[in-house]
Amino acid sequence: MANLASNTPTDQALAPVGSAAETDPRVLGWMQGAPPPADKLIRFGDGSHLLFPQLRWSLSHFGELVPSKTISRGAMPAAPLPRQERDDLDGVRFCPIGSAQSMNWADSLPANYTDGIVVLHRGRIVFERYLGALQPQRSHLAFSVTKSFVGLLAASMVHERSLDENAPVSHYVPELKASAFGDATVRQLLDMITGLQYREDYTDPNAEVWAHSRAGGLLPRPADYAGPQSFYAFLQTVQKLGAHGQGFMYKTINTDALGWVLRRISGQSLADMLSERIWSRLGCEQDASILVDSEGTEFGGGGLCTSLRDLARFGDMLRNGGEACGRQVVPTAVLEDIRRGANREHFKMGGYVTLPGWSYRNMWWVSHNAHGAFMARGIHGQAIYIDPKAEMTIARYASHHIAGNMGIDPQSLPAYHAMALQLMR
Amino acid sequence: MANLASNTPTDQALAPVGSAAETDPRVLGWMQGAPPPADKLIRFGDGSHLLFPQLRWSLSHFGELVPSKTISRGAMPAAPLPRQERDDLDGVRFCPIGSAQSMNWADSLPANYTDGIVVLHRGRIVFERYLGALQPQRSHLAFSVTKSFVGLLAASMVHERSLDENAPVSHYVPELKASAFGDATVRQLLDMITGLQYREDYTDPNAEVWAHSRAGGLLPRPADYAGPQSFYAFLQTVQKLGAHGQGFMYKTINTDALGWVLRRISGQSLADMLSERIWSRLGCEQDASILVDSEGTEFGGGGLCTSLRDLARFGDMLRNGGEACGRQVVPTAVLEDIRRGANREHFKMGGYVTLPGWSYRNMWWVSHNAHGAFMARGIHGQAIYIDPKAEMTIARYASHHIAGNMGIDPQSLPAYHAMALQLMR
Repeated sequence: MANLASNTPTDQALAPVGSAAETDPRVLGWMQGAPPPADKLIRFGDGSHLLFPQLRWSLSHFGELVPSKTISRGAMPAAPLPRQERDDLDGVRFCPIGSAQSMNWADSLPANYTDGIVVLHRGRIVFERYLGALQPQRSHLAFSVTKSFVGLLAASMVHERSLDENAPVSHYVPELKASAFGDATVRQLLDMITGLQYREDYTDPNAEVWAHSRAGGLLPRPADYAGPQSFYAFLQTVQKLGAHGQGFMYKTINTDALGWVLRRISGQSLADMLSERIWSRLGCEQDASILVDSEGTEFGGGGLCTSLRDLARFGDMLRNGGEACGRQVVPTAVLEDIRRGANREHFKMGGYVTLPGWSYRNMWWVSHNAHGAFMARGIHGQAIYIDPKAEMTIARYASHHIAGNMGIDPQSLPAYHAMALQLMR
Repeated sequence: MANLASNTPTDQALAPVGSAAETDPRVLGWMQGAPPPADKLIRFGDGSHLLFPQLRWSLSHFGELVPSKTISRGAMPAAPLPRQERDDLDGVRFCPIGSAQSMNWADSLPANYTDGIVVLHRGRIVFERYLGALQPQRSHLAFSVTKSFVGLLAASMVHERSLDENAPVSHYVPELKASAFGDATVRQLLDMITGLQYREDYTDPNAEVWAHSRAGGLLPRPADYAGPQSFYAFLQTVQKLGAHGQGFMYKTINTDALGWVLRRISGQSLADMLSERIWSRLGCEQDASILVDSEGTEFGGGGLCTSLRDLARFGDMLRNGGEACGRQVVPTAVLEDIRRGANREHFKMGGYVTLPGWSYRNMWWVSHNAHGAFMARGIHGQAIYIDPKAEMTIARYASHHIAGNMGIDPQSLPAYHAMALQLMR
């Protein structure tokens, strides 16, 4: 299971796995046939949906494995994404982090197990490609990119003063009072500077991340399972480790606790908030959806599924100062707050060697580079990369065998920046 | 559990239940709160999603309870549904079957636990109303209306000669050879004139319909469950009862077996066939979806979920001779075949006292009335009612407490016909 961006290099990085071409789900024939033969079957019940290379299929078919709630695109016609594809982009060259040898853009896509990627420049599609199970009209699981949507909702409510960022979480959700979240502030959740007894180490079968997934119905449960039955029940069991406010420690459950706060304040589901405030205002082509647990609670830390182009529309709205279809969707002040970033000393404690000088604000990853780039990031290489100076937005879905961006960044971050420079020429 | 139109009056019809207003899911507060209080929680795991009045919520939220596969609306812009609402329709009067007292249209809607209804006249919306948990942008479970979609696919493939209606099912699906389906012809499935040991009596806990639902993951399984693990596995266990071709016996598993044939021939999922051949050609507003079992096999007998307006678009394409958005979607010959209907003597054996003189062809219900009306029907009152002479299409979603149209027809069929007469004035 892999439900968030991890900073822990895992054994997976070292194990030999097939290349993107060798693990192309269409080539391997996953879930083809009526019924698929036993060795081509991917099921939730045996956990095979989260093994590699099966997840190259699963991430584009997650709604077929786990129930989900619709995030309506509303009734607005789809906003056209003008197309001006360029033939000079496949050859864009960059030097991967830690490598002496340069690489070109086209080769980086399979190297990073890309399922689909769209590059927008000044709102026009200059590059679009699909390589795996993903297709333009299909959805892909965004995993931790979800967090940036939830962070945006929360930051908007702080801006509107319907949410007090300095209030303790227990002020809004008394049920969390006895947990580690009780005396954390909303702001500490938003910037993930909490002290929580919770490990997201996928190499450790005893890490709490697995218990969280089982509670939320993202992993099958053993027959004698006696753990929490829902995300909410799990959150109430989380214990404190150290003090809040000391430094950045990336933990998915911050977002799930924040989601609880938002639902309590608004009286709405995350899905309805996301639809009303964002998804129905972008001229999306498709409804989005978000995975739910057995009580209907959305997985705010990683359950969003969208089409790639719609993800690009969302990113480009932010690149465009929060405006889409002639309307302000996200307040400019919220965007400015994200772009200013957070405490970079705090961020260092997270140990992200591929992200020197970055920070994490409102659940967005802020590069503080000369272009003011900022990102949403998911564990298998899902990404929104926004480069305001280059007027570029990249939306990418991937199903990398490494569950953690530290193994993925070396071939993607420099590629994104090189693309930006090319587009600025 | 109620997954098909039944001809069996059930105890539910006799038990006292609340009125539509009293059981309005918004009033009862189902699934409201974060989390909902225990007595407002509807879960798949305890089967509460299929109890009344909970199903008044569930039928508009089924994707949140069971995994489903997307039926893409494609990339075409939504086709406008022009609106010309009339104020003379609420008062349309009719006499319910078996009643001496007349009733008006407006009163019939709550009397029938209608969640939403759209009436199109010559392609324009003349009436649209939402009364329960359904909203214009949300999906509702169509239950057996699904069958008419699958029947339409199959009849189209027969027309194209890619499917031989006279071939035995085992010719296409050898896995069914030893089952009751083995020596049934495709045509016998399509018109449901098979002899199958399978009861759809919801009052009998031992009826095979429950085993089918458990196999397909539509009902929770007991801890010691040792039955079939999928729809396909279940179909292979079905035994013959009597001979095929003797008369009409409405049994959902005919459609599921037919779905297997269609997948085998096409190499596609039902969802992809439905999208490519139908849903992407109507100018739909929303993706549709279809529930799947643990192996990803769609519930062809009843798993379709659509928005109401899109269901109306589909119905009106058929009313319009199979044409939509300037293109022939369904061959005229297929529509003519449906409208001619099937053997009405065969139909009598089904025992549908509210449908005298009707027949069942290609999984459509054919009235043989003076208007040539034909229908798709779902067990809790879901319906598409097409009246070619009146140039009228009605799409209706409902969550009636009676699991069977015999209890619903008395207040809906005469209402539909009275509406047709009013529109023809």
